[in-house]
Amino acid sequence: MSTISLDELNAADEQGFVTALSNIYEHAPWVAATAAGKRPFPTLAALAEAMQEAVKQASGERQHELVAGHPDLANKAVRLDTLTLDSQAEQTSAGLDRLNNEEFERFHRLNKAYREKFGIPFIICVRRHAKDSILREFERRLRNDGSAEQQTALGEISRIAALRLDQHVRGPDRLKVHGRLSTHVLDTYQGHPAAGVAIEFFEIGASGESRLLSRATTNGDGRTDRPLIAEQPIPISQYELRFSIGDYFVRGGTALPDPPFLGIVPIRFAVAEPEAHYHVPLLATPWSYATYRGS
Amino acid sequence: MSTISLDELNAADEQGFVTALSNIYEHAPWVAATAAGKRPFPTLAALAEAMQEAVKQASGERQHELVAGHPDLANKAVRLDTLTLDSQAEQTSAGLDRLNNEEFERFHRLNKAYREKFGIPFIICVRRHAKDSILREFERRLRNDGSAEQQTALGEISRIAALRLDQHVRGPDRLKVHGRLSTHVLDTYQGHPAAGVAIEFFEIGASGESRLLSRATTNGDGRTDRPLIAEQPIPISQYELRFSIGDYFVRGGTALPDPPFLGIVPIRFAVAEPEAHYHVPLLATPWSYATYRGS
Amino acid sequence: MSTISLDELNAADEQGFVTALSNIYEHAPWVAATAAGKRPFPTLAALAEAMQEAVKQASGERQHELVAGHPDLANKAVRLDTLTLDSQAEQTSAGLDRLNNEEFERFHRLNKAYREKFGIPFIICVRRHAKDSILREFERRLRNDGSAEQQTALGEISRIAALRLDQHVRGPDRLKVHGRLSTHVLDTYQGHPAAGVAIEFFEIGASGESRLLSRATTNGDGRTDRPLIAEQPIPISQYELRFSIGDYFVRGGTALPDPPFLGIVPIRFAVAEPEAHYHVPLLATPWSYATYRGS
Amino acid sequence: MSTISLDELNAADEQGFVTALSNIYEHAPWVAATAAGKRPFPTLAALAEAMQEAVKQASGERQHELVAGHPDLANKAVRLDTLTLDSQAEQTSAGLDRLNNEEFERFHRLNKAYREKFGIPFIICVRRHAKDSILREFERRLRNDGSAEQQTALGEISRIAALRLDQHVRGPDRLKVHGRLSTHVLDTYQGHPAAGVAIEFFEIGASGESRLLSRATTNGDGRTDRPLIAEQPIPISQYELRFSIGDYFVRGGTALPDPPFLGIVPIRFAVAEPEAHYHVPLLATPWSYATYRGS
Repeated sequence: MSTISLDELNAADEQGFVTALSNIYEHAPWVAATAAGKRPFPTLAALAEAMQEAVKQASGERQHELVAGHPDLANKAVRLDTLTLDSQAEQTSAGLDRLNNEEFERFHRLNKAYREKFGIPFIICVRRHAKDSILREFERRLRNDGSAEQQTALGEISRIAALRLDQHVRGPDRLKVHGRLSTHVLDTYQGHPAAGVAIEFFEIGASGESRLLSRATTNGDGRTDRPLIAEQPIPISQYELRFSIGDYFVRGGTALPDPPFLGIVPIRFAVAEPEAHYHVPLLATPWSYATYRGS
Repeated sequence: MSTISLDELNAADEQGFVTALSNIYEHAPWVAATAAGKRPFPTLAALAEAMQEAVKQASGERQHELVAGHPDLANKAVRLDTLTLDSQAEQTSAGLDRLNNEEFERFHRLNKAYREKFGIPFIICVRRHAKDSILREFERRLRNDGSAEQQTALGEISRIAALRLDQHVRGPDRLKVHGRLSTHVLDTYQGHPAAGVAIEFFEIGASGESRLLSRATTNGDGRTDRPLIAEQPIPISQYELRFSIGDYFVRGGTALPDPPFLGIVPIRFAVAEPEAHYHVPLLATPWSYATYRGS
Repeated sequence: MSTISLDELNAADEQGFVTALSNIYEHAPWVAATAAGKRPFPTLAALAEAMQEAVKQASGERQHELVAGHPDLANKAVRLDTLTLDSQAEQTSAGLDRLNNEEFERFHRLNKAYREKFGIPFIICVRRHAKDSILREFERRLRNDGSAEQQTALGEISRIAALRLDQHVRGPDRLKVHGRLSTHVLDTYQGHPAAGVAIEFFEIGASGESRLLSRATTNGDGRTDRPLIAEQPIPISQYELRFSIGDYFVRGGTALPDPPFLGIVPIRFAVAEPEAHYHVPLLATPWSYATYRGS
Repeated sequence: MSTISLDELNAADEQGFVTALSNIYEHAPWVAATAAGKRPFPTLAALAEAMQEAVKQASGERQHELVAGHPDLANKAVRLDTLTLDSQAEQTSAGLDRLNNEEFERFHRLNKAYREKFGIPFIICVRRHAKDSILREFERRLRNDGSAEQQTALGEISRIAALRLDQHVRGPDRLKVHGRLSTHVLDTYQGHPAAGVAIEFFEIGASGESRLLSRATTNGDGRTDRPLIAEQPIPISQYELRFSIGDYFVRGGTALPDPPFLGIVPIRFAVAEPEAHYHVPLLATPWSYATYRGS
């Protein structure tokens, strides 16, 4: 699905509008059809709101069909390519295509238990999560009652829809679906930004295993040229930044013991709000450092 | 070898003195025999000094024999139990009994190269090192010339001897052969020491692998009941402390996001001076922390 | 009044006991007389407790007389020398002998209002306060009702008595009437304690004026040889430590701009618990510093 | 003197050009006249450079006249209004119109000593200094020899000229004559910017006296709406920021002791580079804080 402008959507005939937005709410063209009558939309936020409203005003039966029409998470379907392209991209983002056998079994078992208890598939906006937080949510939500879960499922569908709108429709505004994760290294030994510090950025799993997400080097302002994460939700997860601060000071000519007291400085933190800004700076000397959630 | 007091050594006949100290300088009873004439020693430091002086004043031939009489590091002999008991204990302390095949080969190759170049075994006070720093020293010292290595070997033998004296002889003073590694957790969110914080203490290998050394929990003063390392040299190595700071704040009733921004705080640092005091505290709130080499 | 040992008090006849403790509760020898029958006291704490109990069990009339027998705070009596020596020493400690005319008027007015409302003098353990906190307490307590104030006055008399016991009677234990204020300077630029840092210690008044209390220089461990305050309650007040950190770094040979970014570092803090330990360290580089309530 | 654009200067006839720039180099229209022939100037930097070059290429006699034509600093003339308007504004900026008698005498004495030694007035770009740093420079430069001082004086005249150009001529670029001083308050107790923190900003004199420069309150991002100093050099001086951090935490509902450990946090620092950016943030909890020269 390529992108389209809000102006084009406002100008399209109803059929064109519905077709263009057919995949925003999966297998539910009636959502776009209902919203079509509310045009023109001045903003993406107004369009997203109108589509959510269409779902809210729909009959219980239609809402149930909407929920029931979603695929099981990480089930065999993932491998059988019966998903829409959007669904596929979303499910791979959280690492659901990298499950080992044990994890696959666990997902399968949770899917089955969930379906048995609630009669609907487990729906979650996977772009906001890493594998471990999906499992935690799965287990938490299994303890809900049926009507709470119906509402939760519709809420997650709204989040999925908002992210798809953000990717497929260009408008004068941006939906508030993105977080940002940034860092900054200050050399408090010399009183200026630390340039040239190598940084590795990892996702840390529940059992402590790390997966390298990216590498960067600080620029003259002590920042990375691009945020570590931007233009997407930050998946709820644990992360670790590793700063090669020992090399930085040695390269700058500071006489240090061998090995230096601080070589690689790891900073481990978790993200709980995918749409927030997390700024995680490092203030360092060869003998001390500090970090904090900044802004 | 059990412990003996300095008074007993001063009062012994020469034969008893030499026997009691026979294993301080390995296979070299003449060192103790030479020192015996300098009795009485008021302090352990004076005894250690007299034995070092005996080595320094010995002929080149005797010095060479002393060096040559030491076992190869981590060679097959480790497994054949031909070492003195002190040598065995020292070599296991640095993890030389946990070498995998590749490491064993590497040690063997370095031992061989060293022996070929210098005609003596590679001698190092292993209690002051971890496996990786021994390998680094091995490679560094292979680039020395023969006479520098002879002096380095004698210096290491003195360090080994001082540690053995410290373990086997009780006197009014202590030799300066011990370091100390301690920590302290301050809750700067509430302005008091953080009690009940679980801490894991790891040795970190050159390729990043971690080995759990000990666990502890902070007491009411935010400290561990015992230092993390004391009464021994701190092996030259990289270490990591992991503080369960998220659990601490949650247990204290602080409302935190799920997952908390800070769960496990890892602090990684290296020790370059085995006989020094390293104090590595953590000052933490749920949103920030700092550490430094303290005192 | 010179000091006496608890053993001597336990061994004295009743008259001797009462005479020795006559000034602990001002103009109320009956307190000591009542406690005398409970001897022997194993600890100072037991003696203090027995005397407090005697007050608590006394008739309302006697309690009222005890309260009423105390002098007005900072009234003309201070200048007329009608106070007991203990009272005089206590009242000068908080600076009540250094009142300017305006403050003297204010105290006089508050004294009068208090006496009119409650019929008793305003009693406060002045060693636990500075001038400003006495004024704050005065105004706060004027809003109480009569019976609360009677209890508050008796509580303050107990505190005064405990401090007098601590000064005049030697026993196997110490009463918990002392606080401690200490500092520590760490050079996180070089990773060791900062020795030779000049420190000035001020009391800061409510309107910002400062009064120098003492000067000190850090020793080799980065501490002052003696705590800034010890062996007494820390008066409830605002304080400021001024650290000559710029001179320290310049003296150590660090090249700094002229003037250095950090010259004098002031740390201002307040004490609310006179019997607590306040540790206020400074971690500094030429370009950054941190402080916290430590332990 | 009102502002004029670089385009207008490039288009003017020579007389108009010289007149427009007559006060950039005081009493020396020949500087502009020489530069006029180099037009057109693409940038302010090119114009400033051409005027400096005209001075550099001038005869020693003319250079001496340029220097000698400047008024004495802070001499009686300040009060007699014989200065050009630019000179007046500059001299008041550093507080030279607020001298007490003793300071006035000191300036007068230094002026006299300087004139006697060098035969020229003491010239300094006062916008880059506070009163105390002018006095320090005065004393430092009195120890120079004559030819060094002639060069220093011409350098200061260039700085004065660049600042006047910056104020009077609009061009496509800005001359690098401005510094910036900013702050930021982070609440590391709650993990977000501290909004609503009252800040007072002082200049601190050599003997510790403070002069309030401005007040501000932090906005939702923890910053002040405008930098504390911008669009001018930051005078070389000592400064103090006072943050009402106790009120901030109390207002946010945090239970604190009375008085709170931290009420007003003073941060004192000095500026040595008037054209640099100084960012001086505060990271605070109710029990700890940190600051550093940031970026």
